Amino acid sequence: METLRVALGGRSYPIHIGTGLLEDPRLYAPHLASRRAAVVTNEVVAPLYLERLERALKQAGASTTSIVVADGEGAKDWRTLDAIFERLLAARCGRDSVIVALGGGVIGDLAGFAAAVYQRGIPFLQVPTTLLAQVDSAVGGKTGINHARGKNMIGAFHQPLAVIADVAALGSLPDRELRAGVAEVIKHAFILDAAFVDWLEANIERLLGREPGTLEQAVRRSCELKARVVAADEREAGVRAILNFGHTFAHAIETGAGYGAWLHGEAVAAGMVMAAELSVRAGLLARPDAERLRALVARAGLPVAGPALAPGRMLELMQVDKKAERGELRFVLLSAVGNAVVRGGISEAHVLAAIATGTLPQAPATAVQ
Amino acid sequence: METLRVALGGRSYPIHIGTGLLEDPRLYAPHLASRRAAVVTNEVVAPLYLERLERALKQAGASTTSIVVADGEGAKDWRTLDAIFERLLAARCGRDSVIVALGGGVIGDLAGFAAAVYQRGIPFLQVPTTLLAQVDSAVGGKTGINHARGKNMIGAFHQPLAVIADVAALGSLPDRELRAGVAEVIKHAFILDAAFVDWLEANIERLLGREPGTLEQAVRRSCELKARVVAADEREAGVRAILNFGHTFAHAIETGAGYGAWLHGEAVAAGMVMAAELSVRAGLLARPDAERLRALVARAGLPVAGPALAPGRMLELMQVDKKAERGELRFVLLSAVGNAVVRGGISEAHVLAAIATGTLPQAPATAVQ
Repeated sequence: METLRVALGGRSYPIHIGTGLLEDPRLYAPHLASRRAAVVTNEVVAPLYLERLERALKQAGASTTSIVVADGEGAKDWRTLDAIFERLLAARCGRDSVIVALGGGVIGDLAGFAAAVYQRGIPFLQVPTTLLAQVDSAVGGKTGINHARGKNMIGAFHQPLAVIADVAALGSLPDRELRAGVAEVIKHAFILDAAFVDWLEANIERLLGREPGTLEQAVRRSCELKARVVAADEREAGVRAILNFGHTFAHAIETGAGYGAWLHGEAVAAGMVMAAELSVRAGLLARPDAERLRALVARAGLPVAGPALAPGRMLELMQVDKKAERGELRFVLLSAVGNAVVRGGISEAHVLAAIATGTLPQAPATAVQ
Repeated sequence: METLRVALGGRSYPIHIGTGLLEDPRLYAPHLASRRAAVVTNEVVAPLYLERLERALKQAGASTTSIVVADGEGAKDWRTLDAIFERLLAARCGRDSVIVALGGGVIGDLAGFAAAVYQRGIPFLQVPTTLLAQVDSAVGGKTGINHARGKNMIGAFHQPLAVIADVAALGSLPDRELRAGVAEVIKHAFILDAAFVDWLEANIERLLGREPGTLEQAVRRSCELKARVVAADEREAGVRAILNFGHTFAHAIETGAGYGAWLHGEAVAAGMVMAAELSVRAGLLARPDAERLRALVARAGLPVAGPALAPGRMLELMQVDKKAERGELRFVLLSAVGNAVVRGGISEAHVLAAIATGTLPQAPATAVQ
């Protein structure tokens, strides 16, 4: 097991990465002794890991309540959240209870937000079971739910007590979800660490083949990079925005295609290709560097183009997105492999062209309004 | 105008108290220049003050959107909150927008919570128009909504940018609501400041008669006392709990009687009488001191007893309340006039007796289950 640390003063916390961690009571005990733990998970993850987790929590001295919600992005809404509150109140969970998020990004966001606002905030633990959650969403304290008008529109910054990333859990992950997680690994490499890009180019097949050491290395390096950015800018007042590389496009893809049609990581993959294209058109990035990104995305089996949406419609969806402030869209762009910058004042023509380049060629884009 | 300060480091903010402040653009300008202001108010307050506030906000350089919700405690729910999000998103309010809460405690809690979670948190201003909000709820950053299973169960600590308390607005307040605000003034005095109790005993009729200087003095002293407690313990990890004097009983009264049947301040008044009675029974307080509280509550025209609920039912409702941790109820009690303590391990018999003493004698308490 390796342990990293997210340095946030009084809100600092460890990220444990290794094999078999999910069932190790010693990792839970420091946070739980004699408290009540409310596990929030979904109907897919529960049969796989819930019993083992509950046993570990009990061995750590906690009494447990488990709340199983539906699988998928559709569960990230107020209705599910309210059902969680109902269960927490029925079980008389007080302000000394701890929520344990067992699952992927949706569960982490949902359970984390429940913890952020239940009785004005109770602590929570992240036990991510997908690659996407282990390398990205479980770290950094972003929590929230979707609104009919946009993704992650309602939420809070709420840091967990600890992240317990058991790479053994990735063994049960469907291939498509593994690839979606790889998209965020690629993102961290391209915005922050050219050497990590080299490493990924050399190891992408081993990573997709779930070679345990390779998985662990990818999770560790991603967490290190993300933890550093979060420590520098917890609430996204500045540098943290670079973690949204590809995301302004991705959120529009997800909304435009309907929640759940695209996995978040798939949308991020296509969004990064668009953002790299925009970086080239804005004169920031050399075309061969954008091609490296596209090639790695393709090798990971991820989409290099968005769904069949007219570029104008994509742009409209992007403007609803929360990065649109004072009416102007701001983009995270690459200035080199391993280096990202945030830029406003990008011409709409460049944006539309970048979207068009990254749109599936066979799609009747102009027919969709 | 007087200006106090809530000392919370980077989250410090001013409380402005005076006459005619609501329409003074100079108080808004420092927080709003060239930003979008979304005013949240209700259908009773809007016809009285919305136009004047909008004019001041525009003079301060902001563009404005106004959101008018229903009046009353019933609006403090998820449905109303979601309608606010819908309007904010439709108006394309981004993370640089500012919410302005114009109204009483319900509006402050609701609009403050909307600000706390909209796009993971945007700033807000409190413009309280009731005595209760000016002396208590607008200061300190507690925001939230109710759940069918209990009051204020969902919420966040989110400090405003400033509190602008215009005592001229109290002129339009119904008598019953004025009295409800006086309950919180009495609370601050009894838990923190014996000299302020003396002052209230000497000035209660002038206060109820809305003598401007007396109102302003009561608001200022209450805000001073509350600001000091909040600065010492922002998130209620310790001393701030004393501000809940009477509230464990009050929340049970409000829930038991049905939201809205009792005003919050009325429930607090009866709850304080019960808490003082419990303080005497627990051996902490001399009976004449409890009688001083009861007499002042009565002179303020506030209830000195709860609704017709069996003490056992009251106790059950109190145990759902969030102050019930690890199964044990903790109470804020008085050890003297002007001094409060938090105590657990109080015998249930004492609690039931305190409730019974503070129950309307004519009510068929034992018939209600």
